[in-house]
Amino acid sequence: MSFFELIHEDKNTGARAGIMHTEHGDIPTPAFMPVGTQASVKTLDQTDLLVLDPKIILANNYHLHLRPGEDLIDGVGGLHKFMNWDRPILTDSGGFQVFSLGIQKEQKGQQGKLVKIDEDGVKFRSHIDGSEHRFTPESAIECQHKIGADIIMAFDECTPDNADYIYTKAAMERTHRWAERCVSEHQKNISYHGYRQFLFGIIQGANHEELRQESAKFITGLDFDGIAIGGESIGYNMEATENILRLVMPFISKNKPRYTMGVGLDPADLLKVVAGGADMFDCVAPTRLARHGMVFVNTKEDPKRRLNIKNSAFAKDFSSISADCTCLTCQNYSRAYLHHLFNAGELSALRLATIHNIHFMLELMRQARAAILEDRYAEFINNWQ
Amino acid sequence: MSFFELIHEDKNTGARAGIMHTEHGDIPTPAFMPVGTQASVKTLDQTDLLVLDPKIILANNYHLHLRPGEDLIDGVGGLHKFMNWDRPILTDSGGFQVFSLGIQKEQKGQQGKLVKIDEDGVKFRSHIDGSEHRFTPESAIECQHKIGADIIMAFDECTPDNADYIYTKAAMERTHRWAERCVSEHQKNISYHGYRQFLFGIIQGANHEELRQESAKFITGLDFDGIAIGGESIGYNMEATENILRLVMPFISKNKPRYTMGVGLDPADLLKVVAGGADMFDCVAPTRLARHGMVFVNTKEDPKRRLNIKNSAFAKDFSSISADCTCLTCQNYSRAYLHHLFNAGELSALRLATIHNIHFMLELMRQARAAILEDRYAEFINNWQ
Repeated sequence: MSFFELIHEDKNTGARAGIMHTEHGDIPTPAFMPVGTQASVKTLDQTDLLVLDPKIILANNYHLHLRPGEDLIDGVGGLHKFMNWDRPILTDSGGFQVFSLGIQKEQKGQQGKLVKIDEDGVKFRSHIDGSEHRFTPESAIECQHKIGADIIMAFDECTPDNADYIYTKAAMERTHRWAERCVSEHQKNISYHGYRQFLFGIIQGANHEELRQESAKFITGLDFDGIAIGGESIGYNMEATENILRLVMPFISKNKPRYTMGVGLDPADLLKVVAGGADMFDCVAPTRLARHGMVFVNTKEDPKRRLNIKNSAFAKDFSSISADCTCLTCQNYSRAYLHHLFNAGELSALRLATIHNIHFMLELMRQARAAILEDRYAEFINNWQ
Repeated sequence: MSFFELIHEDKNTGARAGIMHTEHGDIPTPAFMPVGTQASVKTLDQTDLLVLDPKIILANNYHLHLRPGEDLIDGVGGLHKFMNWDRPILTDSGGFQVFSLGIQKEQKGQQGKLVKIDEDGVKFRSHIDGSEHRFTPESAIECQHKIGADIIMAFDECTPDNADYIYTKAAMERTHRWAERCVSEHQKNISYHGYRQFLFGIIQGANHEELRQESAKFITGLDFDGIAIGGESIGYNMEATENILRLVMPFISKNKPRYTMGVGLDPADLLKVVAGGADMFDCVAPTRLARHGMVFVNTKEDPKRRLNIKNSAFAKDFSSISADCTCLTCQNYSRAYLHHLFNAGELSALRLATIHNIHFMLELMRQARAAILEDRYAEFINNWQ
């Protein structure tokens, strides 16, 4: 059986329904992947996740390398065992985090503590304790082998959108050379823990159309199991995101899963990239918004499709967040009670809101997939917006 | 059926097994009551509590009066409905909190913001926003009627142990007059929400033996459904606590439940007060300790019967907190994973540790009750210590 099966293409949009097969289970697509950066989806435990029923979650190579370290995780048999999660996991390579979280500026009395990129790799300092670390394409893959996620990512440089063309092009070309080295390193040990790990490549090129096409051409030419689209704009500038998808999709085989990295700031964004042909997405927004009391609703009660439950308007509102929501939070608690918990600073509020938002995203994807399978995705997306 | 049934008295100690009958369910005693001050046992939700299976939880009249307010809770049909907890609840009257949390000192630019006691009641300012409030015995009972807990407490003054004899005696006598007013106010409306609420009186007198006896004599002479023993020392100075229990127990009818307020800083403390004849206890320590990474163990691995899971000794310890513990945390996660979560600042760690500590206390009480019923409580307590 191949890793990815394309089940159906919607007749009227670019949306597709598929399925990924891994050692730890099947993943129907389109799939929203809750983010568990540090081997924990923030505020939840894995028994909460089993109820929410995501078919895959995400963790981060950068964070786990720094804490608790890949060797500790390797020693207990991999991340699934360490965190007691027997379903699929994807790890991001840490390329994005090395540049976004590593100490980048010289600080008083800490000369030379910069992220330093050379052809071989990146030297960076931990955002936790300032200690020096180095990732090369080879070491980032080795680290992900030890962690043992079902899907792992090539090590890349995600250039800022405001970088000039010359820098962006040079960085992209280095990322391409790194991609070849990642594939080569991965081939040496594709089943480190005894089960197959699948490696995805990442298309970069920022917002330069010709670079995006060049990158798509190059990355899809390598032996990757799936193709990701990275970049600062992806998920944060939806116009740019949709444009980039249009540019790169023609280069990607129909038989490979496509992963837009960091999409999901707004539930509607997922629907847009699905229409553009994406199969997988992750975003910290649903869980981060939840911790700030922002909960998703599927009515037009609020134009942004989210409520700030801390708003005093909800102090005496004894209805659930969403009348038709089947999540633990909506089945048990009123807006007024959640408002009280947030207002009183109770930590339970953060978990209850997180449960609702993750359930909302997963349910939205279940509905989207059903619509795709019946060729009514265009209608579905129109009704939702 | 009477409110409290004494089932069995241990032959060798003062320990008893009993049962309290309330509208929302029966409560076997001895009973540890998890503290849900603000209508939430910190970090947990009520579906977590159903798994842990406490037969009663505690909330606080002072906190709920300030936020969300008793009228809001009354409007939705009482606290059980507000928080979706259909089992017994006890509310403390707020006497202790008025004095311990109310703004007591004059602060710069906030002249006269003191707790002011007179014969009629107490004027205090909210610890949240400094707003002025007043509790009288009557209003504290009315507030508890509206909140609707199954067991409510008389409004009292808990004097500090370092207060002089004259002040302590005068305050105790005022607390006695307030107790009479509480009984009288409660009689007017014993079933405010349509079900019977049970009122407990509180014995004060600090560490003065003759005052404790005088208070015990007075409080047990009033029409209370149960008798509590309050005071700054209770639960925090176990020698004084045990001495006070010896002094007051002879005055309390065997057929009334006895509640030592604030005991449980250490699991062994519960066993001591049970031996002294107490039936009920609450303490914020098990949940507060959990949030600081301190988890209870029932082996002698640590002399204090608790481990600091944040200690680096646990970084590579892949056993559960307690080998024989059946809580969700021990059934699913290793010490190493919990250590990682605490170390990484993940909020899920706080809930998982809380689940373990509450389970530990409830399980200890289940075992204690079984031992009492078989007249082997002395052996049980000796084995544990």
